[in-house]
Amino acid sequence: MSLPARLTRAALLSAAALLPIPLAAQSGADVAQAYRRAHEAEIVRDFAELLTYPNRASDTEDITRNALYIRDLLREAGAESELLTIDGVAPLVYGQLNVPGATRTLGIYVHYDGQPVDPRNWTHPPFEPTLYSASMEAGGEPIPMPVPGEAVDPEWRVYARSAGDDKAPISAVVTVLHAFREGGVTPTSNLVFFFDGEEEAGSRNLGRYMEMRADKLDEVDIWLFCDGPAHQSGRPQLTFGVRGAMGMEVTVYGATRNLHSGHYGNWAPDTGSILAHLLATMKDADGNVVVEGWYDTAEPIGEEEQAALESIPDVDPLLREELGLAWTEGQPETIAERLLLPALNIRGLTSGNTGALARNVIPNTAVAALGIRLVKGNDPAHLRQLVVNHIERQGFHVVSEDPDQETRLRYPRIAKVTGGGGYPAARTEMADPFVQQVIGAASRAADRAFGPGSLVLAPGMGGTLPLYLFTDVADKPAIVVPVANHDNNQHAPDENLRIANLWYAIDLYAALLTMPPGVS
Amino acid sequence: MSLPARLTRAALLSAAALLPIPLAAQSGADVAQAYRRAHEAEIVRDFAELLTYPNRASDTEDITRNALYIRDLLREAGAESELLTIDGVAPLVYGQLNVPGATRTLGIYVHYDGQPVDPRNWTHPPFEPTLYSASMEAGGEPIPMPVPGEAVDPEWRVYARSAGDDKAPISAVVTVLHAFREGGVTPTSNLVFFFDGEEEAGSRNLGRYMEMRADKLDEVDIWLFCDGPAHQSGRPQLTFGVRGAMGMEVTVYGATRNLHSGHYGNWAPDTGSILAHLLATMKDADGNVVVEGWYDTAEPIGEEEQAALESIPDVDPLLREELGLAWTEGQPETIAERLLLPALNIRGLTSGNTGALARNVIPNTAVAALGIRLVKGNDPAHLRQLVVNHIERQGFHVVSEDPDQETRLRYPRIAKVTGGGGYPAARTEMADPFVQQVIGAASRAADRAFGPGSLVLAPGMGGTLPLYLFTDVADKPAIVVPVANHDNNQHAPDENLRIANLWYAIDLYAALLTMPPGVS
Repeated sequence: MSLPARLTRAALLSAAALLPIPLAAQSGADVAQAYRRAHEAEIVRDFAELLTYPNRASDTEDITRNALYIRDLLREAGAESELLTIDGVAPLVYGQLNVPGATRTLGIYVHYDGQPVDPRNWTHPPFEPTLYSASMEAGGEPIPMPVPGEAVDPEWRVYARSAGDDKAPISAVVTVLHAFREGGVTPTSNLVFFFDGEEEAGSRNLGRYMEMRADKLDEVDIWLFCDGPAHQSGRPQLTFGVRGAMGMEVTVYGATRNLHSGHYGNWAPDTGSILAHLLATMKDADGNVVVEGWYDTAEPIGEEEQAALESIPDVDPLLREELGLAWTEGQPETIAERLLLPALNIRGLTSGNTGALARNVIPNTAVAALGIRLVKGNDPAHLRQLVVNHIERQGFHVVSEDPDQETRLRYPRIAKVTGGGGYPAARTEMADPFVQQVIGAASRAADRAFGPGSLVLAPGMGGTLPLYLFTDVADKPAIVVPVANHDNNQHAPDENLRIANLWYAIDLYAALLTMPPGVS
Repeated sequence: MSLPARLTRAALLSAAALLPIPLAAQSGADVAQAYRRAHEAEIVRDFAELLTYPNRASDTEDITRNALYIRDLLREAGAESELLTIDGVAPLVYGQLNVPGATRTLGIYVHYDGQPVDPRNWTHPPFEPTLYSASMEAGGEPIPMPVPGEAVDPEWRVYARSAGDDKAPISAVVTVLHAFREGGVTPTSNLVFFFDGEEEAGSRNLGRYMEMRADKLDEVDIWLFCDGPAHQSGRPQLTFGVRGAMGMEVTVYGATRNLHSGHYGNWAPDTGSILAHLLATMKDADGNVVVEGWYDTAEPIGEEEQAALESIPDVDPLLREELGLAWTEGQPETIAERLLLPALNIRGLTSGNTGALARNVIPNTAVAALGIRLVKGNDPAHLRQLVVNHIERQGFHVVSEDPDQETRLRYPRIAKVTGGGGYPAARTEMADPFVQQVIGAASRAADRAFGPGSLVLAPGMGGTLPLYLFTDVADKPAIVVPVANHDNNQHAPDENLRIANLWYAIDLYAALLTMPPGVS
């Protein structure tokens, strides 16, 4: 859709390059803001174009097309860029921008893949970006993409998979590079771009990709993990830790085939009921996990993090109102407190059919997908084993493949447990001097975009990034630098980005790329 | 597929009609068997053609095409036939065959609609009948349809929706009428055909259709309900009662939208867990329903039924072996005993996704479809209320529509309960003289097809038919006369009919249509 827009901008840029530079000395932030104001429609259209690329990590063809497009965006913006590849998996988009005289190197991590989509649940096709006058919940209506020169309302939203998670930082940083080139601003740090194509699939090859550029990555002083949403208060945030994540699946078995519920009902094992009995033992009525040992290995937070935690706005009443909740798990503990504990959720249930497809059968299996979030101190394999132990204590024979006839005839209760793996949590010390510089730059951008004092410092966020590869394996400080609105529906249908948050992202990268020269 | 076969048979019939009838006096059963042996391939092909008609009751176009085809089958076989219609619902195929001098009228009820299909779960498209050399479980392979004259193996199976439930009786009775016409046999009863197009959708209009032919239906002395499978021992059966059926659906609520399991996990309500806690309270670990009052209204069986019950083969060990079960609900009670109690099963669970589509969300709803089977004495509305009461006792606010924001913010636990209705159970006295005649005829057919003494007399079967409309509303005796193999996968993917059971059906109708003159 935005090919003409892109050509137009390229033409503008060429024209600008031919002109003398008449600008008085301006801050990088001012230059970026002025550039943004002059090109709002084009920036929105370019962002929408980026969102047209289907980006499920496991579809190697799709994800490679996506990677090549992003590589070219970086090149057009003046950076060196190439794909790092491993056979059969999503490529990594590597880029660098070396700044003569710079004494610091910033690593910028973004992921360009997205969660799987079930298009039946979306209002619009997930890879046909649709602009709305406001969020759907607020009564927004679809509107046409703006044409160059047209005013852009910051409350507009772009609906598409990966609008919020996680393509906005790519558009923002590329825009800032264009703005700086046009405005004659030089970044104060060398830049390394590391754009992951497998984050939603567990970043299984990120470590190997890091090894391919080990020398260059060694030069990085601090990693900016550009992912995640703003604080639920709507205020921007920096986060110094993430939870780990792990998916598991539990299948319980009835007869070898679906049975007619009339001819066998009251006699054949009722798989849904068996699964319900099992799942009900995993959490108590307050939502606390009662799997033995579940909370034992969670590291307590330190005094600094405790202080930051106490200064976080109390968003619980707001969130409960927004989400229509009269009750939350572990209440009266707040969400900020609850995110510092490992979570166990049922992310999916499948057995037979409900609704119009419901049939009079006793389904022969019932399946629960478990979503687990780990905190600092938790080992994924250990938590997995705790779940397996728990299932066995409920009287189940645990298997890893569908049971054969002999196994079925031997054990009254059988549960197949699959999945696991995933990755651990991570935390970075807030006292680190590079961390302090980033806090300073982000504060300035947040002040500009959302008002003075708006930046929230969160010791830990609930979501998951492969941060441990940088903090624990490569031993570098790493900060999570989110830009998306908190109600972006990430991982869900009708994912979206609020335009105001795209403008904030541009302010933020402008500030980060022009931080005063570093400490090293 | 079988148009040429049908033409061939029509040609044969015409040719036969022109010949003198050289047959010695044969029994109707002998004539039907000889006819079947001479036309096995054609009968299988005609049956397969009948199965090509998609037959979900709610698809009025499809189901009407089906009804017209069946009406024409009856006409071709020498019966009068027409469609009874009510706007917007499936037609009823009505037919009659008046036999001069007959002193008895048999009502033949069959349903020609089928359960909904989810083709993704079928090995072959459900309306493209596929012949197998044996059941899939026994290693059968797809084979071509036989050509006229080719031998047909009784172990072959036809796979298609409604192969077992419930189109085989239609093919069988039409075949017998052709055989009798060709062989010069006159039925000993008047016949009334009442072919329901809405049985799988609850036979909601059957009562109204019955009123449309009230005068003729008053003449019926006994109804033969041709539906259901053979006894699990593989032996044919007659059944003198059925359970009623009712579907309900329970939806529990979390936030107003799906939430990211990282950013909200451990705080937002976990709908799968809430549903599991609720469902786990409905049945105990032995599979007994613990909803208060659940078993209170079930009528105890009488002495005659008790005697029949005791003579039923004990198929539990066989069934457990076949179905891979080390445990059954309510054990050590047998399946025959358990079918005389009301059942509560979870026929579907839906929340988020499992498997490859599983995403890191906390689903905003979790849904359970409940399948309920009623026995004599149970009132559907009463059992529904017991379930609602139970849910309320677990602390839920029960609603009938999705809750609005005010309701959400007021009640920590909300459950939407929908569905209900369905129909009650029914039973017919085994001592009735017409019933005794049918038992005699069916015994003879069973002896012929499966060996002496093979017929099982079951006081109650687990499945559901709208039998109460005949037994309780119209006050006629009604017997369930099943023909399908017990492992026909009815209501499930890969539904099938074993050819031997089609042959039995032909023997059965031949015997029923030539019962010695009646008692009235």
